[in-house]
Amino acid sequence: MVELERVVKSGHSTEQVSQPSRIAAPDEAIGADELQLAARNHGMPLEALHYDITPPGLHYLLTHYDIPVLDAATWRLTVDGKVRRPLVLSLDDLRSRPAVTLPVTLECAGNGRARLNPRPVSQPWLNEAVGTAEWTGTPLASLLAEAGVEPGAVEVVFTGHDHGVERGVEQDYQRGLSFADAAQEEVLLAYQMNGLPLPPQHGFPLRLMAPGWYGMAHVKWLRAITVTDEPFAGFQNARAYRVKNHPDDVGEPVTRIRPRALMAPPGFPDFMSRARVARPGRHLLTGRAWSGLAPVTGVQVSVDGGATWDDADLEPALGRWAWSRWTYQWDAVEPGRHVLLARASDAAGNTQPVDQEWNAQGMANNMAQRVEVHVS
Amino acid sequence: MVELERVVKSGHSTEQVSQPSRIAAPDEAIGADELQLAARNHGMPLEALHYDITPPGLHYLLTHYDIPVLDAATWRLTVDGKVRRPLVLSLDDLRSRPAVTLPVTLECAGNGRARLNPRPVSQPWLNEAVGTAEWTGTPLASLLAEAGVEPGAVEVVFTGHDHGVERGVEQDYQRGLSFADAAQEEVLLAYQMNGLPLPPQHGFPLRLMAPGWYGMAHVKWLRAITVTDEPFAGFQNARAYRVKNHPDDVGEPVTRIRPRALMAPPGFPDFMSRARVARPGRHLLTGRAWSGLAPVTGVQVSVDGGATWDDADLEPALGRWAWSRWTYQWDAVEPGRHVLLARASDAAGNTQPVDQEWNAQGMANNMAQRVEVHVS
Repeated sequence: MVELERVVKSGHSTEQVSQPSRIAAPDEAIGADELQLAARNHGMPLEALHYDITPPGLHYLLTHYDIPVLDAATWRLTVDGKVRRPLVLSLDDLRSRPAVTLPVTLECAGNGRARLNPRPVSQPWLNEAVGTAEWTGTPLASLLAEAGVEPGAVEVVFTGHDHGVERGVEQDYQRGLSFADAAQEEVLLAYQMNGLPLPPQHGFPLRLMAPGWYGMAHVKWLRAITVTDEPFAGFQNARAYRVKNHPDDVGEPVTRIRPRALMAPPGFPDFMSRARVARPGRHLLTGRAWSGLAPVTGVQVSVDGGATWDDADLEPALGRWAWSRWTYQWDAVEPGRHVLLARASDAAGNTQPVDQEWNAQGMANNMAQRVEVHVS
Repeated sequence: MVELERVVKSGHSTEQVSQPSRIAAPDEAIGADELQLAARNHGMPLEALHYDITPPGLHYLLTHYDIPVLDAATWRLTVDGKVRRPLVLSLDDLRSRPAVTLPVTLECAGNGRARLNPRPVSQPWLNEAVGTAEWTGTPLASLLAEAGVEPGAVEVVFTGHDHGVERGVEQDYQRGLSFADAAQEEVLLAYQMNGLPLPPQHGFPLRLMAPGWYGMAHVKWLRAITVTDEPFAGFQNARAYRVKNHPDDVGEPVTRIRPRALMAPPGFPDFMSRARVARPGRHLLTGRAWSGLAPVTGVQVSVDGGATWDDADLEPALGRWAWSRWTYQWDAVEPGRHVLLARASDAAGNTQPVDQEWNAQGMANNMAQRVEVHVS
């Protein structure tokens, strides 16, 4: 059965190292704890929006605990729980199965958190927690079929090797997906990123890819897949990745990626402020847009701080689960400060908000990006 | 001649986007500008100290402006200034020359800045701005010999394609090295990192490698090498990378890497506080130590907050310009909070300080790392 989270019984150590979640005071500056996370984890510098496939090392990265050091030769994946034929698989076993390669845009559920006011205190992402890679792996559905899922299966729980404490709960990172979601044909057990073995920080030797979902679903450093006949109530599903109105709210689960457009800021930056300087004249604004809920149908750009909007030219997506490139001609005539925005819409009728839609953990926040440009 | 920095004459835009350097008030929290830098740039998560060669994507990264998007087919390197035969070279020209591969430990000159109090406001590094890679390139000395350096050459100026504003000065990133330093046999024009073409963020298609020097010397996205008969007074040499007692001080230039030891923190972390939890018992503390001034001769560890120190076991360095692995047996007997430190010494008689040696820009600060561990 599922290895449930283990609360450290003494409580001694975890009380000293682990505090409840917290919302910063209005306009409170970034704390030492948030800085430690920002120094480890990193976003994708937005000029990398110029690439269809994000160059290795520029893809966003969020690691809850430590990056495990694993030996592929001794590593094994177990498939157990409500299955007739439990499996123990080596990396070679998985690599010998049918392989699929998919371009997938991944985004952290906390992207945009540090732009909320008041700010939920956690990994302080601005807008950059995104990236697109080509992931190669074997479909999960056929592996589950081979294991023989028993009637009554409702959920599939994925357990990683990464181990730590979070809000007082000691745990291996674990996430559950409904059986229906896990059985989608695009869900992969991935062992390659951009044609090479997974880098350690992206889940070597094996991670889940659940295209369309925010990053928390794509469990890295997989060691176990467990089919259950009851909903999984582990920390990451029941407490961490929820859209809550206040910290004690049960909230709603974070699931698929809401639409977002980002632009590569035009001109060139100031080192410290990151504000942009652009020459007067015509600039081709370029960016990407994506949604895990439905195909992107449009991107709109405002070059006057949101007062008026105009349609960008949208190119076909790299694939159903990957971003689309868009462009927009901006005639930067007036010297001075300009604020540019972009927002995406999808075929399910979702559009990005221009103002914040606050929630207590800063999850699934897709408020439109604002880029300040000074025309000289 | 050297293309000197161009101050934007109107001053209009740069005044709005670019402020003078600043020192935070005592205990002032991290600002929005520092967070923007921390979200783009990233350190090496310290558990990656387990690897001899830092896996791609985990190596530290500091980009002053934007990462340029360059086309290797049309890119050219010019070698000019006080030379008899100016050169224009393609990437193929450089790759057809004699090649050398060296393991090199690179560290940002600003590493440790955010641990200073009061804190100089810039990229807010904690301890992690380091990494080791194998760099392949062609020696600079033979290229300069081929160009025919004229008598009286005193400096070599390296210019990158990266362009931005810094403290009011619009510039391409440029650094000068004395002719004697540039002519050292280990100085390379590098086109490969770990056996592959340079990733965009590490300087594709070509960067300087000046082993032993802090990162600012290893100019990325090289486009020009200019031999001069007078000292280079550009922004990055004369103003940015200086050890200053106060912001208006001329200061001393930042040059080679001071000794530093870092340990991979034992046990496992809390997500938010990053404090460590460890089981009682024997732990093998492991880490790396390096110095650009002279070979590392010793690493000492304290497991009692710096009250007493003991010698760690030091392994041979990966190479003259790369780090050494060290280990230390820690018997974690007493439950509760422990503070572990490590410090390195080198053959030139340099040892890391345990207390801060403050300077106004937070440069070349090698104060010993402190790791808080809670034994449960």
